[in-house]
Amino acid sequence: MALRTAFRGRAALSGLLSCSSHGRLSPSFISQRKNSTSPKIKVDYDQTTGVAVMRMQSPPVNSLSLDFLTEVCISLEKLEMDKGCRGIIITSNQPKVFSAGLDILEMYGKSPEHCGEFWKAVQEMWLKLYGSNMVTIAAINGSSPAGGCLMSLTCDYRIMADNPRYSIGLNETQLGIVAPFWFKDTMVNTVGHRNTEMALELGLLYKPAEALKIGLVDQLVPEDQVLTAATQTITKWLAIPEHARQITKSMMRKQTIEKLRSNREADIQNFVNFITKESIQKSLRMYMEMLKQKKA
Amino acid sequence: MALRTAFRGRAALSGLLSCSSHGRLSPSFISQRKNSTSPKIKVDYDQTTGVAVMRMQSPPVNSLSLDFLTEVCISLEKLEMDKGCRGIIITSNQPKVFSAGLDILEMYGKSPEHCGEFWKAVQEMWLKLYGSNMVTIAAINGSSPAGGCLMSLTCDYRIMADNPRYSIGLNETQLGIVAPFWFKDTMVNTVGHRNTEMALELGLLYKPAEALKIGLVDQLVPEDQVLTAATQTITKWLAIPEHARQITKSMMRKQTIEKLRSNREADIQNFVNFITKESIQKSLRMYMEMLKQKKA
Amino acid sequence: MALRTAFRGRAALSGLLSCSSHGRLSPSFISQRKNSTSPKIKVDYDQTTGVAVMRMQSPPVNSLSLDFLTEVCISLEKLEMDKGCRGIIITSNQPKVFSAGLDILEMYGKSPEHCGEFWKAVQEMWLKLYGSNMVTIAAINGSSPAGGCLMSLTCDYRIMADNPRYSIGLNETQLGIVAPFWFKDTMVNTVGHRNTEMALELGLLYKPAEALKIGLVDQLVPEDQVLTAATQTITKWLAIPEHARQITKSMMRKQTIEKLRSNREADIQNFVNFITKESIQKSLRMYMEMLKQKKA
Repeated sequence: MALRTAFRGRAALSGLLSCSSHGRLSPSFISQRKNSTSPKIKVDYDQTTGVAVMRMQSPPVNSLSLDFLTEVCISLEKLEMDKGCRGIIITSNQPKVFSAGLDILEMYGKSPEHCGEFWKAVQEMWLKLYGSNMVTIAAINGSSPAGGCLMSLTCDYRIMADNPRYSIGLNETQLGIVAPFWFKDTMVNTVGHRNTEMALELGLLYKPAEALKIGLVDQLVPEDQVLTAATQTITKWLAIPEHARQITKSMMRKQTIEKLRSNREADIQNFVNFITKESIQKSLRMYMEMLKQKKA
Repeated sequence: MALRTAFRGRAALSGLLSCSSHGRLSPSFISQRKNSTSPKIKVDYDQTTGVAVMRMQSPPVNSLSLDFLTEVCISLEKLEMDKGCRGIIITSNQPKVFSAGLDILEMYGKSPEHCGEFWKAVQEMWLKLYGSNMVTIAAINGSSPAGGCLMSLTCDYRIMADNPRYSIGLNETQLGIVAPFWFKDTMVNTVGHRNTEMALELGLLYKPAEALKIGLVDQLVPEDQVLTAATQTITKWLAIPEHARQITKSMMRKQTIEKLRSNREADIQNFVNFITKESIQKSLRMYMEMLKQKKA
Repeated sequence: MALRTAFRGRAALSGLLSCSSHGRLSPSFISQRKNSTSPKIKVDYDQTTGVAVMRMQSPPVNSLSLDFLTEVCISLEKLEMDKGCRGIIITSNQPKVFSAGLDILEMYGKSPEHCGEFWKAVQEMWLKLYGSNMVTIAAINGSSPAGGCLMSLTCDYRIMADNPRYSIGLNETQLGIVAPFWFKDTMVNTVGHRNTEMALELGLLYKPAEALKIGLVDQLVPEDQVLTAATQTITKWLAIPEHARQITKSMMRKQTIEKLRSNREADIQNFVNFITKESIQKSLRMYMEMLKQKKA
């Protein structure tokens, strides 16, 4: 319980990954998620514009737990199947954070089977988002490390709050773990090989102004205008002939997507072998202890 | 006839593709093209410098019709075979436009066979220009959308008139059609993956200053100095040891070229299947109607 | 002898490649190199920090001769095998030059066998440096053309003296020879496809400020602070969890490395066939004559 508490505060935001308490899926929970408003994701879908706003609201820091990832995927599937829905804005309902990334508690002290199931869900989210036919805009209204950054990178366009207390980046290396090849490929496609090499080797987190400079985000706006700007942007994107835009998006991304799709099992096995190593588990434990002390 | 007239004016410049009147090749026309000065391309070849200036002069907007493309290819072949010719400057003799791109009339209401023949000519022009052993400089003295932009991108260096009324870009998506993979590859090689993704999905046309910023063109000069600057530039390029420069150019481009060369038939089939779709034909018709109304 | 003298002076620095006098390996010379301080490379290894400083000191301009390359590789192997050594700073003990690049005398008037042996050593240096598990920092305290630039490009980070009299670049084309595909790949990974295309076709040498602008170097500092800055930088890099950093570095580079590794013999044959051509030998002779005249 102490550990859970530790991740409720600001401390987690300064970190690399995140964790949150969560239980296994219960039947009632699953049925709840069939509503457009599920516990961890609030979806506001406007049929007149064809735009859905997905608000992440999994306290404290929108950690990407297995449950959360499953909800994201179910929400995306529902929207993707709705012919009227043409665009998504992804944003956070939690203060100061977009998403703090993958939930450490899904990887620490868990069985290889659980770790594998978790990793499959991370892959699934990436495949659904990076391969989405819809226009996807990240309205980054808080810090966005690791998996949070990955979510942003899958979108067609990234608007970030111009607040120097926030940062964004794939900082896995700082924690002693490794961003997999498809995280890397997504970043290379966005900011090029050299920026990615340096960012991933050092586990860099970028302030908004730096992120804009290297192209990690596309636009900075005052914090209270992130959603407005995202709405204006998506309107422009939706004015583009849809079929041609979709084919073009697919052409730009299919090689990167295909690379994971044809290597999913090996990638899962690779992750499980790595994360269940004693030395890596020790790193995770030390990291969580450090967070606890920060909190205390 | 009304349609033809519609494309004679300024309206076409604001558009995405272009069209022009043209007839089928007649025997006398073919023989004319054996002269260095053919109807649609004027070639001024200076044997003392080894530089040929290719002036596009196909009214009103240098649309890339089948005839025009054939002439471009024949001119290039002749120059490539002349051992003394070491460099080409490509520019326009039409006011305000470099080239308005592929001629819509070659794709609208035409048989699959005709569309296939047309596409093969587009491929051929790209293969000849992107794979040319000669130094190639684009002297972009007007707007250069779609296929016009592609021509520029095949060159070794791009100098554009610094006139904010002109624009350049692969804007096919705006018309509801899709830039094929080799247009995309050429652009990625020039401005990188992320700029290309956004440019192609939105069908962006860039003002000269924006084009310079992302590297879509290499240099801006006042409008009346485009050709002078191109001549100065090509002199520098021709001072480089030729054999080494050619091998290096080939090394940089051969993978991209090989990708189309080994997929020409499939690419033609893909284009024909797409462009002859009822929905796409309808898009083209609506676009031409829009141009007519603008004109009227 | 006259030729040797010619390369002792400043003239060689303005050039593209370089040459230096050298003899074949003698047994006593080989045994010398087992010391951490060998004739052409001085290695200062600080066991408390885990950082080794490799100072190139092969007069006049640190030409990459066969002997010199062999020494570099032996030094690197020794450091790589020492578990305590975690980072290398590569710098020059010669004034005004980091390294003037491949030694022309190893390619001019030599047997195909010798040229092949030389090229294998160039490959070996690149494979060892680009694939090193250690943190590698180039402290570029002088001009760094051709092979000197390649050495810099293999490092994790490049700090250059902010002196406009120095320059850096892969300028092989200027001499009539061609940078091989793996030089090209290394540069593309650093500055992207378009910058590389133009740099290699024209054989460009960049002043420090230009090099910084395109990302060919990462940081400029006053000339007397290059080594200090490199030491500060490597301290930051060494603070990153090592195993994760190494796996990440390998992930970023393995495809490029594998491409040469699986084509070494063909690449050697290709180099030998090219460099032993009469026309290329003539280019090298003319270049050396030009250097002699400059000197006189």
